[in-house]
Amino acid sequence: MKIEQIGEFGLIDKIARQTKTDRTVIKGIGDDTAVLKYSNKEYLLFTTDMLLEGVHFPKPPDTSQVYETSFTCEVKKMSEVSPRSRFFNIGWKSLACNISDIAAMGGVPQYCLISVGLPPNLELKSVNQLYSGIKTLARQFKINVVGGDTIKSGKLIINICLLGKVKKKDLILRSGARKEDAILVTGNLGGSISEKNLNFTPRLKEAQYLVNNFKLHSMIDISDGLILDLYHIIKDSRKGARLYLKEVPISPLIKHKKGALKQALYGGEDFELLFTASKRTGQKIAAQKLARIVGEITAKNNSIESSDGTKLNIDGYQHF
Amino acid sequence: MKIEQIGEFGLIDKIARQTKTDRTVIKGIGDDTAVLKYSNKEYLLFTTDMLLEGVHFPKPPDTSQVYETSFTCEVKKMSEVSPRSRFFNIGWKSLACNISDIAAMGGVPQYCLISVGLPPNLELKSVNQLYSGIKTLARQFKINVVGGDTIKSGKLIINICLLGKVKKKDLILRSGARKEDAILVTGNLGGSISEKNLNFTPRLKEAQYLVNNFKLHSMIDISDGLILDLYHIIKDSRKGARLYLKEVPISPLIKHKKGALKQALYGGEDFELLFTASKRTGQKIAAQKLARIVGEITAKNNSIESSDGTKLNIDGYQHF
Repeated sequence: MKIEQIGEFGLIDKIARQTKTDRTVIKGIGDDTAVLKYSNKEYLLFTTDMLLEGVHFPKPPDTSQVYETSFTCEVKKMSEVSPRSRFFNIGWKSLACNISDIAAMGGVPQYCLISVGLPPNLELKSVNQLYSGIKTLARQFKINVVGGDTIKSGKLIINICLLGKVKKKDLILRSGARKEDAILVTGNLGGSISEKNLNFTPRLKEAQYLVNNFKLHSMIDISDGLILDLYHIIKDSRKGARLYLKEVPISPLIKHKKGALKQALYGGEDFELLFTASKRTGQKIAAQKLARIVGEITAKNNSIESSDGTKLNIDGYQHF
Repeated sequence: MKIEQIGEFGLIDKIARQTKTDRTVIKGIGDDTAVLKYSNKEYLLFTTDMLLEGVHFPKPPDTSQVYETSFTCEVKKMSEVSPRSRFFNIGWKSLACNISDIAAMGGVPQYCLISVGLPPNLELKSVNQLYSGIKTLARQFKINVVGGDTIKSGKLIINICLLGKVKKKDLILRSGARKEDAILVTGNLGGSISEKNLNFTPRLKEAQYLVNNFKLHSMIDISDGLILDLYHIIKDSRKGARLYLKEVPISPLIKHKKGALKQALYGGEDFELLFTASKRTGQKIAAQKLARIVGEITAKNNSIESSDGTKLNIDGYQHF
């Protein structure tokens, strides 16, 4: 059996099932971040993401190189962006997706480690731009860059590991959705097909505002697509979901295009927050225009349907 | 300017100089691990290492594949090992080198995240062996595997991030070496040219015994080679060193071979502990056969010489 046959989530499930942890691990594999015992009032949050040239971003043109396209399923158009800022954007994204994970737990990031695999003939200028993208975002969110690893590699690889904390009372897991909860989403979806997916601002401020002012039941960041990330919530919460397709907020960048709704439902890397709260709380949040109600949690059936009862296909971006 | 011209340590120095951290960071870039504020009595230790096929290990033969050699400067012979255990060993090594870093700070590891880049046509069996290597070592040292990331990749990539802690009184930095300190090393050097470098046992127990029973002044694990890692100590401590070349413990695996001393001095990946302590303490440690005295710290001159005053070339494995 090849791993492409079992798929990314099959593989993660398999690894998770075989992994035992001690009682200082509040949550191990299977949420946006790991949750670890820390102090009386706080937990540590611990997460990592790996980005690879040709998979998460196209080969960026080095100062002296001609731009080569090497698009794969997840690679987005970068033609709008000047070559000089592409390395900056790649660095930015590599940290931003980790911040998004910590935001979705209700926490704040604090320390990061940066591992990079660099082609030896890369211009120093390009490496500086890459780090500049990481550090600019790190400064903006008061994250300390405290170390890392640099190795040589044929293709550009970036792995960032982020450590943060969360007040115990603020921790929001995927598994807390309750029957009749409203399902909400921040911002617009589907726009990641454009360059936006490399320089998005993770919804940390928004998540902090939400957990400080409302009682949320479950939360995840949208990295695999609305449908698949909603599926993570209902699966872990042992519930089902009804999605109001007409309420799904589609990015103005793609609204006029064919297949826009499909892109909003299944396109990954929006990095918006998807969360649930009681109907009443959901309405308050929606009234303040902090997020939009796009559905409701139903009794356990492990499936997602539209308002007219049609079962929606659970499918999004899988890495294999 | 290309990064191969500036070199790995030039690049790390450059990144470190440009990186500002707040006062919760006790030690950022530039030691075996980052040291972070935690509780009254303890610090957090935070470290990461990236291993790449063709750089840190040769392409391992998948169950159905013929073994291809793709040796580079750091790749070691694997012919002694059965194909089935090669993925196990690669997994083992990827965690072991991180544990070694935490050991060299005087601390203990607790939690790890595993990022892997996997070729989609890899056999599931091989992936299981890889994880089995990581988890077997994790169990042995009571480390919780709490998450990670899996992506597809042309070549096998593993990045492990390890979080641990250290009692404040036990923390040993590279920068604490004092004039007239004895320089000590555990175990034997130069043997990593053989398969050993993939399944070595990190010196965690040894390091814990040392910090609990003796006052050490500085410590590092030997990953870049005795000379280069000793250079890291004297540079950060603003001292010099005299090395007793006849006392350098050479691995029995290479002792009879030509260039054995050179290999022991400059070969990387021994993952033994290199540390300094007062002459008196050093003698006690040596008397208990816990480590061997291989030299002494001299007044500041930023260079390493042999007993007869010959300056030794500072050179080891650099990644670029």
